Amino acid sequence: MSSRWSGRNVVVTGGLGFIGSNLAIRLVELGARVTIIDLPDSASAGSLSNVTSILSAARLLREDLSTPGDWASCIAEAQVVFHLAGQVSHSASMQQPVDDLRQNCGSLLNVLEAARRSTPAPKIVFTSTRQVYGRAESLPINETHPVRPPDINGIHKVAAEEYLRIYRQFHDVPSTTLQLTNTYGPRIDLRNPGRGVLNVFIARALRGEPLEIFGDGQQRRDILHVDDVVEALLLAADLDAPGPFLLGEARPTSLREFLDVLAELLPIEVRCRPFPADLQSIDIGDSHCDSTRFAALTGWSPKVTLREGLASTLQWARSQRS
Amino acid sequence: MSSRWSGRNVVVTGGLGFIGSNLAIRLVELGARVTIIDLPDSASAGSLSNVTSILSAARLLREDLSTPGDWASCIAEAQVVFHLAGQVSHSASMQQPVDDLRQNCGSLLNVLEAARRSTPAPKIVFTSTRQVYGRAESLPINETHPVRPPDINGIHKVAAEEYLRIYRQFHDVPSTTLQLTNTYGPRIDLRNPGRGVLNVFIARALRGEPLEIFGDGQQRRDILHVDDVVEALLLAADLDAPGPFLLGEARPTSLREFLDVLAELLPIEVRCRPFPADLQSIDIGDSHCDSTRFAALTGWSPKVTLREGLASTLQWARSQRS
Repeated sequence: MSSRWSGRNVVVTGGLGFIGSNLAIRLVELGARVTIIDLPDSASAGSLSNVTSILSAARLLREDLSTPGDWASCIAEAQVVFHLAGQVSHSASMQQPVDDLRQNCGSLLNVLEAARRSTPAPKIVFTSTRQVYGRAESLPINETHPVRPPDINGIHKVAAEEYLRIYRQFHDVPSTTLQLTNTYGPRIDLRNPGRGVLNVFIARALRGEPLEIFGDGQQRRDILHVDDVVEALLLAADLDAPGPFLLGEARPTSLREFLDVLAELLPIEVRCRPFPADLQSIDIGDSHCDSTRFAALTGWSPKVTLREGLASTLQWARSQRS
Repeated sequence: MSSRWSGRNVVVTGGLGFIGSNLAIRLVELGARVTIIDLPDSASAGSLSNVTSILSAARLLREDLSTPGDWASCIAEAQVVFHLAGQVSHSASMQQPVDDLRQNCGSLLNVLEAARRSTPAPKIVFTSTRQVYGRAESLPINETHPVRPPDINGIHKVAAEEYLRIYRQFHDVPSTTLQLTNTYGPRIDLRNPGRGVLNVFIARALRGEPLEIFGDGQQRRDILHVDDVVEALLLAADLDAPGPFLLGEARPTSLREFLDVLAELLPIEVRCRPFPADLQSIDIGDSHCDSTRFAALTGWSPKVTLREGLASTLQWARSQRS
């Protein structure tokens, strides 16, 4: 794979974030010329410490894609743009919908406008979410499932996927969308509880705090290690098909199973309690995504076991504290 | 109907525009306390002259709903908000997508946030477009047709309809969506060719310029007089059902038929020419919308004949010139 990426001009928006930083590091390893674009405001951006190891090898631009800036020429000159920038918290999108609109729709439209002015336009790889399908009618979910976003963030992700279609159709901007589920691994954002249940579990476990499961913990999820997601993103860059493509596990993991493996690696206390009303209303229930379509075109499949993946995540987290 | 509206506190956003001004005038006639909100910038706003007759009876606020302002308290205090403000040109949305985003999505989210802070929240009546369905799979189109927006404006109208669903579900903001098609009548915007084919035809006919039909003129459309649309909006305000509801004619009208009636009222020259490539790519083909669902709930049906409607439109236009 090294030769394929060697010398390629690649942009990773949101490249200080969890998945973005893992992707940027991998691209540098593969020999790509990497530009990371992330917000200047450190409260909203990912963490600079995520990319310490590649700061000498990659270019870093601290700009906001929702306003004009030097980022536009970076996009225009790139061969591949991984657009991972965005507001990802579902609950934050319900509290501050206009912020979510600006960060998810406004920024992507600006990126697409910059891409459209370049010939040939860069290939855009976009990370959407399995959440666009809402509560599953049947499992596993595949890409023919009705689109029914359960919150403002989901509505904006649907709009984003549609923008990509319009820019493919009318402006010759090639793109591929991956719909992600729960992702964990080194550089996971442990600061912000809005980022998802895995983040909360890992953060509390590391602090020695008891973990709360809503309901009986039998809710099933696709839980993917970030290395497997990064591999999918790399494959998507050279895929001549727009998707969207769902990423999931062959067999989904219950939150209980996740905690059982976590408990093998460090002592944790688990408490079960009823679902809080405000979360239940936007909970999606059981979920399992069928990746057959993406796998058939690319050969992708998740490789990292939960035990390996959690071990490396905890090792990373401990190294951060010391 | 008079008693139903008498004294009611009603906001019409986009109330200087074509449909908005007709609605505001009707509401004043019915005894409502009307606040019109429209943009301060006269190039983007509707026309102040549209509401000359009610300026002493209605309140007028020239503010931009995409930024904070006094408008928010008007929304919160209203019993009914007719949200007609927005960018309506499909081609402009393709040229300036971020403007379309701000005017169509940003403004509505702000209106909904203001509505949500009020108890009880005002009823929102929203005007979407038949365009959200894209090219028809079969005719007539009804509300079960797959949603497939053909341009950026359509994507934003879909997002807007989805916002309303989320605010009904989580924030108790009641709303009803009407999906409009081609509307004509007094106060139609004759300045801007992006506003639709009927506007262009009427404007050119009044100037004595030849009219161009793309193709053979047999393209069929629902062509509704604004009085019938206003009546539908009034009915939607008191309807306890979210829709969306399509508005259409019992039998659609071909552009050729439209021009034939126009030719009875003033001398026009019609030229046929092939479809320009840039327009063909976003043309929706034949269209006919089934209003059965809305009619069954409200008794609505279009009343104004094309001949009556065009005659009153031309009379209005001539009065503007003199």
